[in-house]
Amino acid sequence: MDLPRFAKKVRVLQTCYNSKVNPEIIYLDHAAATPVDDRVLAAMLPYMVEQFYNPSSPYAPAVQVRRDYQEAKRRIAIVLGGRADELVMTAGATESIALAICSGQGHVVTSAIEHASVLAAAESRDHTIVEVTPRGIVTAEAIRAALRPDTYLVSVALANNELGTIQPIRDIAEVVHAERNRRREAGDTRPIYLHCDASQGVGQIDVNVARLGVDMLTVNAGKLGGPKQVACLWAASSVRLTPLISGGGQERGLRSGTENVAGTMGFARAIELAHEHRNYEAKRLASLRDQLQARLTTAFPQAVVSGHPKRRLPGFLHISFAGIDAERLVFLLENQGVLVATGSACAANKNTRSHVLAAIGLAPELADSSVRLTLGRLNDEAQMARASEQIIAAVEHEYARLRR
Amino acid sequence: MDLPRFAKKVRVLQTCYNSKVNPEIIYLDHAAATPVDDRVLAAMLPYMVEQFYNPSSPYAPAVQVRRDYQEAKRRIAIVLGGRADELVMTAGATESIALAICSGQGHVVTSAIEHASVLAAAESRDHTIVEVTPRGIVTAEAIRAALRPDTYLVSVALANNELGTIQPIRDIAEVVHAERNRRREAGDTRPIYLHCDASQGVGQIDVNVARLGVDMLTVNAGKLGGPKQVACLWAASSVRLTPLISGGGQERGLRSGTENVAGTMGFARAIELAHEHRNYEAKRLASLRDQLQARLTTAFPQAVVSGHPKRRLPGFLHISFAGIDAERLVFLLENQGVLVATGSACAANKNTRSHVLAAIGLAPELADSSVRLTLGRLNDEAQMARASEQIIAAVEHEYARLRR
Repeated sequence: MDLPRFAKKVRVLQTCYNSKVNPEIIYLDHAAATPVDDRVLAAMLPYMVEQFYNPSSPYAPAVQVRRDYQEAKRRIAIVLGGRADELVMTAGATESIALAICSGQGHVVTSAIEHASVLAAAESRDHTIVEVTPRGIVTAEAIRAALRPDTYLVSVALANNELGTIQPIRDIAEVVHAERNRRREAGDTRPIYLHCDASQGVGQIDVNVARLGVDMLTVNAGKLGGPKQVACLWAASSVRLTPLISGGGQERGLRSGTENVAGTMGFARAIELAHEHRNYEAKRLASLRDQLQARLTTAFPQAVVSGHPKRRLPGFLHISFAGIDAERLVFLLENQGVLVATGSACAANKNTRSHVLAAIGLAPELADSSVRLTLGRLNDEAQMARASEQIIAAVEHEYARLRR
Repeated sequence: MDLPRFAKKVRVLQTCYNSKVNPEIIYLDHAAATPVDDRVLAAMLPYMVEQFYNPSSPYAPAVQVRRDYQEAKRRIAIVLGGRADELVMTAGATESIALAICSGQGHVVTSAIEHASVLAAAESRDHTIVEVTPRGIVTAEAIRAALRPDTYLVSVALANNELGTIQPIRDIAEVVHAERNRRREAGDTRPIYLHCDASQGVGQIDVNVARLGVDMLTVNAGKLGGPKQVACLWAASSVRLTPLISGGGQERGLRSGTENVAGTMGFARAIELAHEHRNYEAKRLASLRDQLQARLTTAFPQAVVSGHPKRRLPGFLHISFAGIDAERLVFLLENQGVLVATGSACAANKNTRSHVLAAIGLAPELADSSVRLTLGRLNDEAQMARASEQIIAAVEHEYARLRR
C-alpha cells in the first residue's frame, strides 16, 4: 500500500467531499443516502442553468448537450465494463429493477433477502423465492434448485442492503450460463438472464459486468455521492427489454421522457470518483468498521453481529443488543449527533419487522434490538472512536434502565 | 394593471432569473426546456448537500427532510387547487401520463394531437383517437361522440405542445361528468375519468383542478423553470391508480423509490413563482408574441400561422414559410444566436413529420416549412426586435436561394 499516495487521496477526499455537511454529525447511514459530492454537484450545475437545453432539440447548443449526455453514459458504462448503448438511464434503482424484472413474462427466481423493489416486481410474475444461509448468503446451489424450464430471470443483489453480505454472483452466473447452454443444446430458445442489483457495493467492491457474468445490472447514483432518483440499468445487447414508460422514444425507446441530463452528468462523475478511490476506500472503511465492531463487541460480548464475517461490504456493520429497543437507541444516539438506522430505511416508514432478519433466522426480539451502521466517505477514525463511545454509553444506559 | 407593481416584478424576474444564461442567445424554445431558475436552484441545493438524508430514515434530521418534502408537495397542491395526499411525484411528465392512462384496463379516448407519451400509453389500451378542428381544437362534441360504455379515461392536454392551442377542458369535463351521471343513474359502477396533461400552460393560464373539472392532472417542473425529470400526477381521491413501479411503498405505494427530495423542493418553488407571476407574464408574453407575429406576417404575407388565433398560449407562435426548409432555417438562425424548434422537440431526434400538423390538415410541404417559436421568461422586447430581424433575414435569404 503506497502510503504517501493514499494520504494524498485522503486529503482530496476530505477537502473536496461535501464541504457543507455538518462535521458535528457522525453519519452512519451511508446505505440509506449519501450527500451529493461537491465535485458531482459541480458537474451537474451547468446542465441545470447554462446548458439547460432539451437534448432532443435541433440547434447546436442542444446537440452539444446531447453529446455530453451520451458521453456521460459512455463514462458510466466504462466503469461498469459495458457499452453506452447497453445503458438505460432510469429515475432511481427501483425503476431500473422494475424494468429488468418486468421485461419478460416467465418465471422469476430471487432470494428471500432481496430489496422490497425486487420482491414487489417478482410478485407481479410467477416466481420462486429461495432461502438464504444463516449468514445471509444466496448460494448458487439454491438458485440452481429453483430454476425451471420456463425461468427467464434470476435476480440477486450484489450485496444485501441490511447486512452488507456480498453474494456469490459469479457462481450464480455459472448456474445461469449452464442452464442457458442446456437449453441451447436442447433446442429450447427461451432465454434466461441474470439480473443483479448493485445499489450497494459500487465504490467498495469490484462491479464489472463481464467479471460478474451478469446480463443486467442496476446501479444507483444516490448511494454513491450522486443525486437521488438517478440510476441505470445496464443490459447486455442480447437482452430484450420491454419499456415501462413509452412516449418520445428516448433511451432507444426503453425509457421515454426528457433525459435527466444534469443527473446523468452527476452520476458519471460520482461513479468515476467511487471507482477511482475504491481500493483505498474499501481498506479504509473495513479498518474503521473493524475498529467499531471490536469496540462494541468488547463492551458487549453478548452483542450479535449478523451477516457474513468476511463476505461483507467493508462499510457495513449489523449488530443486535439483545433486550434493547433499537428505536430508543436510534433516538438516544441522534441526540448525541450519531445517526444510525434500524433495519432497512428504504421501506418508507413502515414499522414492520425486517424480512431480511427473519430470513436469516434472527429471533424477533434480537431483530427488534438491531441497528445497521453503514460507513462511508463522511466518516474518519476520530469519528469511529466518538461513535463507539456514544453507542456504548447509550446501550449501557438502556441496559441500566431495563435492570431498574 | 398596477404598473409600478408590475415594473417591480419585471425587475425581480430579470435580476433573479438565470443570471448565468448567455444573454447573447435569443432562446425561443421555452416549450422544449427551461433553465432552472436561480431561486429554484437555491431551494434545491440544501437537499442535495446538508439535508441529503433519506426521508424514510428514522432520525430527526431525516424526519425533517420528510416534513419538508411533504410541505413541498402541499405547496404544489395549493397552486393546483388540490391536496398534498392527492399528488404522486413522478420522474417526468411521461411517467405521470403513463401512470394516469395505464391505471385502468378499459377504453381510452384521446385526440390526434396529443403528445407522443399520451398516444403511446393509449396504444397499450383499447382506444379511440378523435380528430381535431383545423385550428387544433379538441371539441367536447368530438369527445362525447367517442365515448363508449366501457370508456374509463379521456385524456386531453390543456394546451397543445406544438401549436399552443388551449383546449376546452371545462367543456370536455362536462361531457365526462354527464357520462358519469348517466352511468350512476343506470346503476353502472364503471368509473370514467378525465386526465389532462398540463405540461404546457402552467404559468401562462389558470391551472386549477377544480375549475378545470379534471380528475387527473399532469404537471411538469422541467417546463416551468424547475429541474428536468421532475413532475407529478394529481389524482382526485376517488381515482384508483395502479402503480407502474412498486417496492418501498413511497408515494402511498403509487411510486416506489427514494424520493427526489431536491427536485420536489425545486418544483414547489418553480410552480409558486410561475403562479405568482402568471397574470403579468401572460400579458407580457402575449404582447411579445404578437409583436413577433405582426413583424413576420407583415414581412411575409404568405406565412401561415397555425393553431387558434385566440385560444392559444400567450408564448406560442407556430408559423410556416411555404417552400422554406425549416431545418435549414433552424441552422441559419442558430448561427445568429436565435434558437427555434421545428415541430416538437420531444420526439427524440426522430425525423418524422409532426403528427399534430398532419392532424390539423397542414399540407406536408407547409409542415416541412414550419418553425415553433415559444417565448418565456428569458425573452424581452429588445430580443423580439432582434429575433424578428434575424428570422426575416434568414427567410429572405432562403427565398433568394430558391429563386436562383
